[in-house]
Amino acid sequence: MSFLGDMELDEVIIRRRDTRHFLPDPIDERVLEGLIKTANLAPSVGQSKPTRYIIVQDPVLRQKIKSNFLVQNEKAKILASGQDKDSDYAKLKLEGILEAPLGLVICCDLSVLKEFSIGTITQPREMLLASTSCAIHTLWLSLTQMGLGMGWVSILDFDELSSSLDLPAEWFPMGYFCIGKPATDYSSMPMLSLENWNSHLEPPIILYK
Amino acid sequence: MSFLGDMELDEVIIRRRDTRHFLPDPIDERVLEGLIKTANLAPSVGQSKPTRYIIVQDPVLRQKIKSNFLVQNEKAKILASGQDKDSDYAKLKLEGILEAPLGLVICCDLSVLKEFSIGTITQPREMLLASTSCAIHTLWLSLTQMGLGMGWVSILDFDELSSSLDLPAEWFPMGYFCIGKPATDYSSMPMLSLENWNSHLEPPIILYK
Repeated sequence: MSFLGDMELDEVIIRRRDTRHFLPDPIDERVLEGLIKTANLAPSVGQSKPTRYIIVQDPVLRQKIKSNFLVQNEKAKILASGQDKDSDYAKLKLEGILEAPLGLVICCDLSVLKEFSIGTITQPREMLLASTSCAIHTLWLSLTQMGLGMGWVSILDFDELSSSLDLPAEWFPMGYFCIGKPATDYSSMPMLSLENWNSHLEPPIILYK
Repeated sequence: MSFLGDMELDEVIIRRRDTRHFLPDPIDERVLEGLIKTANLAPSVGQSKPTRYIIVQDPVLRQKIKSNFLVQNEKAKILASGQDKDSDYAKLKLEGILEAPLGLVICCDLSVLKEFSIGTITQPREMLLASTSCAIHTLWLSLTQMGLGMGWVSILDFDELSSSLDLPAEWFPMGYFCIGKPATDYSSMPMLSLENWNSHLEPPIILYK
């Protein structure tokens, strides 16, 4: 199943969006499982493969996660209210937890450190989280190539998220991921740029030593 | 400059290797700068864009970083010696710091948290490091598409690395990255699989809730 046909890498990188507006069209979970298998080819430190995937189907669980978001977002609104920005934080739509047809929690299993692993001698937690981040980004690019969107929701109490999902103690959840067909491409720019929150056009900072 | 021509996303994901064996062919630093501009399109939490790039040209600095690796790798050899593996850790080549024509340190600038940023209310450090990891992976895929290789070296004392490079206190270095034309494709599998260290064929762990 491919909506857009195969795209070259640069086009996928340019088109990828953090999607918060979804169409209700259902997506077969086997499609997501196939893309997760590709994401499993992402680099992981010492091939530790610490990434774990939880597909969240239960509407009661999704409602709990939405409530978790709402509480944290109220705190964020207070912090944001003093900011000198051209946009209003409180009006930004920052998730599609209940609308997106697929919901996913992606975790980093820190218990892989119980055995010796290559490359984790000095910064084990950071290197494992980096590995899971690479898997997340691989999934995001693959979804983009298929014409699907993903939104990364991190405005959450992570301990409460773990508890809601009854996760093993050593699985660190990297967030909740909303997946489905995007309802908009935000005029081909990140939504935060469209909403005058942050520019996406600043050049990278490169030093020479 | 493109060595392999344009590749589709899946092919790039499959071909990407953690490269430790490099050809001496010089690579123009402007090529790397161009790819870093593309990596700057990677997702970052609240568009905080925390990633900073240091191209390491000074041979004295590179030698210092190599020495840093050697000290940490001796410690790793001791930890690895008790492992029941089919491969010998001490014989693995885990970096190409002096051979790779280009050297790069990629940092996450945690000082972006001094201002309010979207999505960092509960796990700010983790979300920023995840953003930089996505940029690193974007660079890695772009290099792969061009027929270039990258190796991520994390067997380092990170404080010493920061000190060697005189980095700002809030720039967390994610590792040293060796970049150049690969001398081998490791029989089209990860080197650690080729060396019987870890299998890369284990399926991902997916749960339903």
